[in-house]
Amino acid sequence: MQTIDLPLDSAIYQANSEPSRQLWSSQAPLKLEASGIELPFQLAYQTWGNLNKAGNNAILVVHALSGSANLDSWWPDLLGADKPLNPERDFVICINLLGSCYGSSGPASIRPNSNEVWKIDFPPLSIRDQVRAQAALIKHLGIKKLHSIIGPSLGGMIALEWALLEPELVSSLILIATTAQHSAQAIANSSCQRAAIRLDPKFNNGYYTADQAPENGLALARQMAFITYRSDREFSERFKREPGAEQPFAIQDYLLYQGRKFTERFDANCYIRLSECMNSHDIGKNRNGVVSALQSIQQPTLVISLEHDQLYTFTEQALLAEHIPNATHQLINTRYGHDGFLIESQAMAIAMSTFLPIH
Amino acid sequence: MQTIDLPLDSAIYQANSEPSRQLWSSQAPLKLEASGIELPFQLAYQTWGNLNKAGNNAILVVHALSGSANLDSWWPDLLGADKPLNPERDFVICINLLGSCYGSSGPASIRPNSNEVWKIDFPPLSIRDQVRAQAALIKHLGIKKLHSIIGPSLGGMIALEWALLEPELVSSLILIATTAQHSAQAIANSSCQRAAIRLDPKFNNGYYTADQAPENGLALARQMAFITYRSDREFSERFKREPGAEQPFAIQDYLLYQGRKFTERFDANCYIRLSECMNSHDIGKNRNGVVSALQSIQQPTLVISLEHDQLYTFTEQALLAEHIPNATHQLINTRYGHDGFLIESQAMAIAMSTFLPIH
Repeated sequence: MQTIDLPLDSAIYQANSEPSRQLWSSQAPLKLEASGIELPFQLAYQTWGNLNKAGNNAILVVHALSGSANLDSWWPDLLGADKPLNPERDFVICINLLGSCYGSSGPASIRPNSNEVWKIDFPPLSIRDQVRAQAALIKHLGIKKLHSIIGPSLGGMIALEWALLEPELVSSLILIATTAQHSAQAIANSSCQRAAIRLDPKFNNGYYTADQAPENGLALARQMAFITYRSDREFSERFKREPGAEQPFAIQDYLLYQGRKFTERFDANCYIRLSECMNSHDIGKNRNGVVSALQSIQQPTLVISLEHDQLYTFTEQALLAEHIPNATHQLINTRYGHDGFLIESQAMAIAMSTFLPIH
Repeated sequence: MQTIDLPLDSAIYQANSEPSRQLWSSQAPLKLEASGIELPFQLAYQTWGNLNKAGNNAILVVHALSGSANLDSWWPDLLGADKPLNPERDFVICINLLGSCYGSSGPASIRPNSNEVWKIDFPPLSIRDQVRAQAALIKHLGIKKLHSIIGPSLGGMIALEWALLEPELVSSLILIATTAQHSAQAIANSSCQRAAIRLDPKFNNGYYTADQAPENGLALARQMAFITYRSDREFSERFKREPGAEQPFAIQDYLLYQGRKFTERFDANCYIRLSECMNSHDIGKNRNGVVSALQSIQQPTLVISLEHDQLYTFTEQALLAEHIPNATHQLINTRYGHDGFLIESQAMAIAMSTFLPIH
């Protein structure tokens, strides 16, 4: 396995770099779906375990909107000996998404042949662009067959496109809290989030500097998103109005905290580009519609829903399971809604451990 | 019936005044629940039909967040001969909410004993403040008994408090798409909407002028709210992604239009104060909790839910119907969610016509 450890090129998020992270610069540029731009790119990734000689024990985990290649940090309970992602058996790989700010090329990284950060001039990306970038790295790593691709949320959208764009490379799929196409309501929500960032006077049409970043706008976008990541049930139980309570508005402080915390680890232009990328998601595009596309997926597939998910609803996962010929659909009970994929570790581990070895 | 037609005092929204609107200035100030401030106030209202000699054929309709006293404009199909609100039989009255911008005292009206608009110095209001202000006008008009109080959404919150604060004045209730207390999720959503207004640099901490109003912030707040007023189902059907469609993002233009349209008819500080007023809603406060408060409501009550209402959910109306001793609960089938109360005129008319004459 050949990897090139390049110096980190993110001007803004160096503080978030992971010591075990590797970087790969593609020799060939990526021709972007929407613009036709030939984008030079690098990807940051992490691996656990070793690739076997046949090159077929790799499992690709695709992270969600605000995640990173550092699987240890966001799915610690699913990775390790006796866990569904077992480095003693599997070669686990997680790649920071193109357009993100954890080492892969994106609005916060240096534009090639310049000393400048891309900022908003980094071009828009589609889900299919993400797959093509990742596939280049997967092939570069000598992987002949991915035993499975596992993706929650945005990661699940990318996993679906993987199965359709590179069917020969993919043995099985685990699609978690995801959808075949971004719904009108999800488009509406994410459109408001991007508008909040643009409304911040510091946004400066996307040409802000790191020390004058639109933190208020990004924090508000995160608050809006966070509401959709959780459930009314969780919020109601957690921030219950007690008889006689004079301060029942702790939810507001909690949201403010979530918003502020996010601005310390994410970049506003990256958020815009990844949010747009999700919006573009439609596996039916140029494939005669969603149903036809789903019916062409041959891989054994586990579809996982999280109870009370209001962002990508049970109905949307039921559609996946209904039309993918070899799919199983499992509902995980939780009060957390969409974020249950990060929180309900035990149930997630059981579902994945049952599915993975036999497929 | 005695009314005083004062000159309109809203500096900003004169253009929206209705010719048939009447204005009443209270002789006594309103002592506000949260601040203890003694607020001088006037209310704008409209009436249809005539009060009978017994003073007991009045029906009070309480409007929602962005409504006005001009019932003709937002519920035209429910008002008229052979309609549930029948001016040949009923004395129908609708009062612009305190804090709103259609003639009643609020942030966009002139501060008494000054030539200045209140702006953000207009104090916060509670739902109970709204009832006390309206009750003063109802008594002033010589009404001895309200045959019914009808309220959708925020109007339903006020109707509930009416039944608890002025039980002797209220014969029956129609509570539409409303709730016993503002849920944590509703608080979270409205908190983000107010934050969007504040993020607009033109907001100027609430001291903007009419020609430099924070239109972008208010438009974004309206967009965010509008998503909760409709349903994923309606959006999906209306803005369906067709196979091969290259521009499936009409929902974004539609939302932008809704946001812009709203800024032409509403004031940002008024939106903040009414949004905070809704957030304060909790009929259980100082009444030993919600269930106890509901159990003490003696009036015959019709509770109406709109299918797919994601703002005030079916479960919240079921709670009302479960604990109000003499309540009937009706679900109106619609794909529109919360806004169904404005759209499903025929079903609303049947439900109200069946309930009103016999109670």
